[in-house]
Amino acid sequence: MSSWTLDEVAKHNSADSCWVIIKNKVYDVTEFLNEHPGGSGIILKYAGRDATRAYEPIHPPDALDKNLPRSKHLGPLDSNAARLVEQAQQNRKKTKDELRVAAAYKQRPSLDRILSLADMEAVARRVLSQKALAYYSSSSDDQMSYQENAHAFKRFFFHPRVMRPVSRCDPSTTILGYKSSIPVFICGAALAKLGHPDGEANLTRGAAQTNIIQMVSSNASLSYAEIMAAARPSQPLFFQLYKNVNDTLAEKRVREVERLGYRSIWLTVDALVPGNREKDIRSPWVLEEMESGQPEYHVDVADGVVEGGDAGLGTAGALIANDDRDMTWEKTIPWLRSITNLPIVLKGIQTVEDAVLAAEVGVEGILLSNHGGRQLDYSFPPLETLYRIRKQRPDVFDKLEVYIDGGIERGTDVVKALCLGAKAVGLGRPFLYAQSAYGVPGVVKIIRILEREIVTAMRLMGATSVEDLKPEMVERVDWQPLLRPKL
Amino acid sequence: MSSWTLDEVAKHNSADSCWVIIKNKVYDVTEFLNEHPGGSGIILKYAGRDATRAYEPIHPPDALDKNLPRSKHLGPLDSNAARLVEQAQQNRKKTKDELRVAAAYKQRPSLDRILSLADMEAVARRVLSQKALAYYSSSSDDQMSYQENAHAFKRFFFHPRVMRPVSRCDPSTTILGYKSSIPVFICGAALAKLGHPDGEANLTRGAAQTNIIQMVSSNASLSYAEIMAAARPSQPLFFQLYKNVNDTLAEKRVREVERLGYRSIWLTVDALVPGNREKDIRSPWVLEEMESGQPEYHVDVADGVVEGGDAGLGTAGALIANDDRDMTWEKTIPWLRSITNLPIVLKGIQTVEDAVLAAEVGVEGILLSNHGGRQLDYSFPPLETLYRIRKQRPDVFDKLEVYIDGGIERGTDVVKALCLGAKAVGLGRPFLYAQSAYGVPGVVKIIRILEREIVTAMRLMGATSVEDLKPEMVERVDWQPLLRPKL
Amino acid sequence: MSSWTLDEVAKHNSADSCWVIIKNKVYDVTEFLNEHPGGSGIILKYAGRDATRAYEPIHPPDALDKNLPRSKHLGPLDSNAARLVEQAQQNRKKTKDELRVAAAYKQRPSLDRILSLADMEAVARRVLSQKALAYYSSSSDDQMSYQENAHAFKRFFFHPRVMRPVSRCDPSTTILGYKSSIPVFICGAALAKLGHPDGEANLTRGAAQTNIIQMVSSNASLSYAEIMAAARPSQPLFFQLYKNVNDTLAEKRVREVERLGYRSIWLTVDALVPGNREKDIRSPWVLEEMESGQPEYHVDVADGVVEGGDAGLGTAGALIANDDRDMTWEKTIPWLRSITNLPIVLKGIQTVEDAVLAAEVGVEGILLSNHGGRQLDYSFPPLETLYRIRKQRPDVFDKLEVYIDGGIERGTDVVKALCLGAKAVGLGRPFLYAQSAYGVPGVVKIIRILEREIVTAMRLMGATSVEDLKPEMVERVDWQPLLRPKL
Amino acid sequence: MSSWTLDEVAKHNSADSCWVIIKNKVYDVTEFLNEHPGGSGIILKYAGRDATRAYEPIHPPDALDKNLPRSKHLGPLDSNAARLVEQAQQNRKKTKDELRVAAAYKQRPSLDRILSLADMEAVARRVLSQKALAYYSSSSDDQMSYQENAHAFKRFFFHPRVMRPVSRCDPSTTILGYKSSIPVFICGAALAKLGHPDGEANLTRGAAQTNIIQMVSSNASLSYAEIMAAARPSQPLFFQLYKNVNDTLAEKRVREVERLGYRSIWLTVDALVPGNREKDIRSPWVLEEMESGQPEYHVDVADGVVEGGDAGLGTAGALIANDDRDMTWEKTIPWLRSITNLPIVLKGIQTVEDAVLAAEVGVEGILLSNHGGRQLDYSFPPLETLYRIRKQRPDVFDKLEVYIDGGIERGTDVVKALCLGAKAVGLGRPFLYAQSAYGVPGVVKIIRILEREIVTAMRLMGATSVEDLKPEMVERVDWQPLLRPKL
Repeated sequence: MSSWTLDEVAKHNSADSCWVIIKNKVYDVTEFLNEHPGGSGIILKYAGRDATRAYEPIHPPDALDKNLPRSKHLGPLDSNAARLVEQAQQNRKKTKDELRVAAAYKQRPSLDRILSLADMEAVARRVLSQKALAYYSSSSDDQMSYQENAHAFKRFFFHPRVMRPVSRCDPSTTILGYKSSIPVFICGAALAKLGHPDGEANLTRGAAQTNIIQMVSSNASLSYAEIMAAARPSQPLFFQLYKNVNDTLAEKRVREVERLGYRSIWLTVDALVPGNREKDIRSPWVLEEMESGQPEYHVDVADGVVEGGDAGLGTAGALIANDDRDMTWEKTIPWLRSITNLPIVLKGIQTVEDAVLAAEVGVEGILLSNHGGRQLDYSFPPLETLYRIRKQRPDVFDKLEVYIDGGIERGTDVVKALCLGAKAVGLGRPFLYAQSAYGVPGVVKIIRILEREIVTAMRLMGATSVEDLKPEMVERVDWQPLLRPKL
Repeated sequence: MSSWTLDEVAKHNSADSCWVIIKNKVYDVTEFLNEHPGGSGIILKYAGRDATRAYEPIHPPDALDKNLPRSKHLGPLDSNAARLVEQAQQNRKKTKDELRVAAAYKQRPSLDRILSLADMEAVARRVLSQKALAYYSSSSDDQMSYQENAHAFKRFFFHPRVMRPVSRCDPSTTILGYKSSIPVFICGAALAKLGHPDGEANLTRGAAQTNIIQMVSSNASLSYAEIMAAARPSQPLFFQLYKNVNDTLAEKRVREVERLGYRSIWLTVDALVPGNREKDIRSPWVLEEMESGQPEYHVDVADGVVEGGDAGLGTAGALIANDDRDMTWEKTIPWLRSITNLPIVLKGIQTVEDAVLAAEVGVEGILLSNHGGRQLDYSFPPLETLYRIRKQRPDVFDKLEVYIDGGIERGTDVVKALCLGAKAVGLGRPFLYAQSAYGVPGVVKIIRILEREIVTAMRLMGATSVEDLKPEMVERVDWQPLLRPKL
Repeated sequence: MSSWTLDEVAKHNSADSCWVIIKNKVYDVTEFLNEHPGGSGIILKYAGRDATRAYEPIHPPDALDKNLPRSKHLGPLDSNAARLVEQAQQNRKKTKDELRVAAAYKQRPSLDRILSLADMEAVARRVLSQKALAYYSSSSDDQMSYQENAHAFKRFFFHPRVMRPVSRCDPSTTILGYKSSIPVFICGAALAKLGHPDGEANLTRGAAQTNIIQMVSSNASLSYAEIMAAARPSQPLFFQLYKNVNDTLAEKRVREVERLGYRSIWLTVDALVPGNREKDIRSPWVLEEMESGQPEYHVDVADGVVEGGDAGLGTAGALIANDDRDMTWEKTIPWLRSITNLPIVLKGIQTVEDAVLAAEVGVEGILLSNHGGRQLDYSFPPLETLYRIRKQRPDVFDKLEVYIDGGIERGTDVVKALCLGAKAVGLGRPFLYAQSAYGVPGVVKIIRILEREIVTAMRLMGATSVEDLKPEMVERVDWQPLLRPKL
Repeated sequence: MSSWTLDEVAKHNSADSCWVIIKNKVYDVTEFLNEHPGGSGIILKYAGRDATRAYEPIHPPDALDKNLPRSKHLGPLDSNAARLVEQAQQNRKKTKDELRVAAAYKQRPSLDRILSLADMEAVARRVLSQKALAYYSSSSDDQMSYQENAHAFKRFFFHPRVMRPVSRCDPSTTILGYKSSIPVFICGAALAKLGHPDGEANLTRGAAQTNIIQMVSSNASLSYAEIMAAARPSQPLFFQLYKNVNDTLAEKRVREVERLGYRSIWLTVDALVPGNREKDIRSPWVLEEMESGQPEYHVDVADGVVEGGDAGLGTAGALIANDDRDMTWEKTIPWLRSITNLPIVLKGIQTVEDAVLAAEVGVEGILLSNHGGRQLDYSFPPLETLYRIRKQRPDVFDKLEVYIDGGIERGTDVVKALCLGAKAVGLGRPFLYAQSAYGVPGVVKIIRILEREIVTAMRLMGATSVEDLKPEMVERVDWQPLLRPKL
């Protein structure tokens, strides 16, 4: 295989023949253009040029190997070209957003000043790029489910018991049989590299230091192998499966992660089509406005052409473009059982009825989730679904493990979910924020904060183990708690 | 018939003899002054002068033919006069409001940046004239019903089902047997020309392109024939009847629209007298203040005369001044049946009791509506009425078709109404805003947005047709959802 | 009796001998100082000087005759003294507050621009003196009952009926057998002269022009005779009795008003001791700050004296200082029956239990009221009390007439109260505001606005008389209506 | 024992040998460093130097005697050293916070302008040091319990009775048999010297003047003897016990206060571990920022060290570091009975279940409390707990006395609690604020305000003694009262 000059590559700058450079290697993506889940437009923007900077934060390193035939891997740049690319990258004028982020990064407080998850989020919101923040923080439509997820916790108050010995207090639990130091796990979340160059490995290392468990997304921005490589020996990792519409590809993915040592499969069932995340969709326009100093709105040209193409579906849409939209209880669960012996958890159960069906079909667990409010707006807050299962079908808790995610902000939130019957709770965004702002130490900090808050709450409730947390220790109050604290 | 000079017309500038020029024709409106539903004052302001600019946006072209005897049509201006009128119009100094509108119009974003109905309304609020916005957006008294119409939807959350095949999803339905691509129709709304010179025809053409159905108001600003002429062959149009107190005139109107090819009669029953729309009433004063730079308030003169005449009833009052305030179940429905074979829908049912009466009297449908909160303030939100029918008298849904309008802002709102039993939902203001801001493409855009939102919501709920949407898939929650989304 | 010079009067400038000049007459109030309900301090401020300007707006002209023995009426100023007093008054520098009021008064809008009671209040808040506004608008403690009075109405929504003939609609009713053009009366409210020199007579004349009924307060700032003199022949006036602790004085008052022609006695039972109206109490300090330009807070002197005397009880406290705090069902009602044949209404009933007791004791009516939120904070909103009587003891409505006051802002509010069983509703503050801002025409305007709003609401509900308004036409909704209208 | 020079002391400036000067006496605290509940860091800051200014406001004078062996009391400074220390103190540059406080102190309004507890708090918030305000006002996590404590009272409305004689009204009651002029007591609260140099003695003297009862905290900043010395003969004082983990030390404390004449023991059961009071923890950083003019956030150093030590637990954590976390019904109550004959009250009961257990175990009273929202966030508001006891187990009120604290702001709040069955209510922060702002007169003022408000409310409800206050006179309303009063 020969090596290439920039001029040679530059000739292939159209949909007819489209080459791109990624990390000094040249790829012919002409035939792939129409298959690209994120659309051809974004690739053509880099046709005949170096695309590394756009490509890298949102693709795992093995994406090209998995998706582009070897024949289209055209080989390396020659050394002069590689040098020119590097120079161009070094000389590139930083965008306003990059300058803003760099300045904010220097101003981060030291970690001992971070007292709460809210403190951490506040730092992350300053140091994240506009695109990363838009992707991490966006939720669907009017963000009602997103905010009601957290709001639901504010309706549950404690009935704390006194005169019980609490000097010893152990907040640990197990999840699918694996020990966890606190009843919290890291929920699968895509694209950690958008926030930090080490990406999902930050989470893996933070989990290792604190003995909690990470669930890895199919859409991680590192390869599944790289993430497993970041783990300590015997550190359990779970895998969040987005099932490809093509059963063969889907099976290949499952067998890969089982081989790599992942310990369970969390099948995503609440994200068959992309939610309407307007902040994410609008993000490039906002960025454009920020960089140009011009208002976001495009002025109509004189000839009255006011209709453009339809807006895309944002980052989220691209990630699930090839997923299976026709999964069923009868077909999909047996198929999954047939190709793996790993325990199966359904991620995205939103009703009592489906919780019962899951128990009947015999999966090992369910994660009550509305995808962090990122999919169907006005889907029920998971805590309310948990509360309904507790009231209507408490037998479900005997048949499988029940987890929830969405809206957890404090240790008291975790304790509330456990009182109602949850085995553990998942957090997604807080970990993305933490690793973006501080890398591994940020991840560890979040867990330490939660641990301290959980133990304090347990002791003040008269509980010394997770088994002591009972439904009668929480009450869903019938008034509307105030939202803005005085002072 | 002779032609007229401006001087000749100018002599007739009082209530004793009042001539006006409209589109270069001269009319003697002296005897009509007292019959004018909008009052004589507004006509006398133009006595002896050209009134075209004030007349045109709020009257259909055939209004003079229908309301003024031929003998009062005095004939055309002479050519010199016509030229002078045209020059005057061209030389006329634009008002501040017109200049504001023109500038805002140029700044409209391209349509592909419009992601939601809220985005569209935001543009329309900038490009509409003060008068048009006041008429379109006003509602009665303290706007409680107006805002509660929308607020009601925020109390209904989804119980979405998973593991159901949704790759194919068809949101179409029928209304009175006519196919509609989505379960949405364009509700009758008056005076579209206030917002765009093509008026209601924009809606007709947008409906044609997207295969949905338009209901045309008795108070349209185009003639019923003009609107039908804008339709494609076989495109179904419905007619919203405001019944004149004079049965003969009312019958004439019904027979006209039946002859023109309208497919059903939607009899308005919730607007017998005008609601108290203060923003609409206050509009001329606000405009006056805007143009003069003086505060809205008039200083009392020294002699202490503080009492002026009573404020008018705004645009809305004028439109229904001659309507029948004594309709009854026993009299009016049989009368209407006797003069037309078209299906009949009652527009403005607001109670379970009246829904039952409508079913008993045998009309083909009812539209649950409080007139967009523009009539009786504190009338029940239609969604809550729908919910009560579902709870108390579900048999009603078997006897006629039930529609609702008022407060719909998202595809999820449409889906909620369908879950509860609505056959389709009507939208009024969003279409007026869309046609005002972008003409036909704006109307099409609104429908495409709704279609995308409806299909996304259906799929994420596990539904692939409108029949799959069931009452148990929504829950009226007993808490108060937050209103202000975080970030 | 001789006449006096200013020098002679000026010698009596202490508590030992305290003379004051009122309207050019000299009074020895030395012995009265301790009896003055407003305290001696305010009188001593004017000892030996002209007190007319402070005295006049808050005392009826016959107050001195009724309260000061003839021997203390020392006679007139001599003509030179009278001239000097007048000059001093003319040369007096206007206070900042007076200048503010005068400017605001000139800027009042013409009355035809007043569309609602809220519009009227907005004008009044600008043109009232600081003291008058503080007295009129103040309510007790944290103003919870004040605001919940109005808030209660926002929870009641209408179930309007359609297809009923409403071209004729009559909103009139009777109160204790006296005809009223609308189901609204003017509630007793003290000190109308604070807002307008003609005081309560403005209300009398406005009621005459519109055929509604005025209730006159014991604490009116005109004499009961003056108010009756302002009435038209046969115009009914009601009397609000604050019963003096001294039965003889109380009987004298009742006999006086019966003799003058008042038609009923409304015995106040909810204001035995003054409520804690902080705005009213604070008013002189705010005024002091306004005039001096210094902050309200007084700096402590160096010697550390930080404790002053207790704050007074404001204007309200003074008015009821001598009232009977030991009224009982067994004693007071029979006593009142024994001295008058007029119908008796109890003003200030706040519970179902007391409504039942009132029915048993046989009074002609009860006014459900918490004194406009000016007495006990957190006392129940009258509309909620009315609702409880309707639910728990509907028989009460058959035994006496039930009225309510407090929180009425719209015609729809009146209609809601009537649906629940009220015979009529009283308004206080809106009439004080109206007469302050515009005199008689303001009062008439308020009534016309209410009439229009009531008739519109009745028609849109399918009602043509007050008898058509039924409990089933309102529903107390179980959600929290939004408070801030959009736009 | 010799006397010391500053040079000699200054040599002992490290953890190896740590001496400090307090009030001109020298102490060797080397061995005590690790036992100091507030951590060694804060002591080492003053190693070899004068520590009086930091020590004094937060330690009672007998703390050194009680906690440091006599052998470590090294004796006095010599006279020259003492003079130098005094000079240094006098020459010390005032901090910005001290200057702010001094200026605000001079601007305090005279006490007669203080109309309510809210007025008093507003003054205190201005005159308190940053540290004192942070400690007094802080509460745990998101302050939900703190604000819901007060919010709970806003849901209870009155059903006031009329026509009852109220000219005589006596608000007095008894607490554990001791007379109290109003049903209010001063709740135990630590560190009064932070706000005023006379500390808790201000409360004692204020209670004496008004005949109410003070509960003294184990963590008072005066010695228990000093506080008792401030009392009048026979003035009852109660003692709030934080039980040391060491039973011998705990017994010593109980025997000391019994010997001193305290009349009852209030055992704290809701503060076994410190709540998460972020404002308190953050206080030194805020102060640091205030003094330096630099933002609170510390910039990370270049080498990427972002992790500091964990934040401390604030002032609150230090106070209870040695408390017993393993108290039980079976063990602790009998132990306490065995060492004292004083009546026992449990402070911090938060559930109906524990109220029943307390009644069964036979203590004399319970204080329903969540520690002012300073411990477990989302613990139930005490008023709601009281309401549940009233509904579910009214027999509890017959078996012991029930008190509540937390969220009381008005006399009406006190009356509500009494209607529901409370014997008296405790207030903490308001008294700390009052003594900080005005010393003893401030404390007296608070009580006078409450007395006036309670008597007014009782009379307006038709009650003349605390026995007249009945459960049926309050209703927990099912709507959400508005929070922001109009005007």
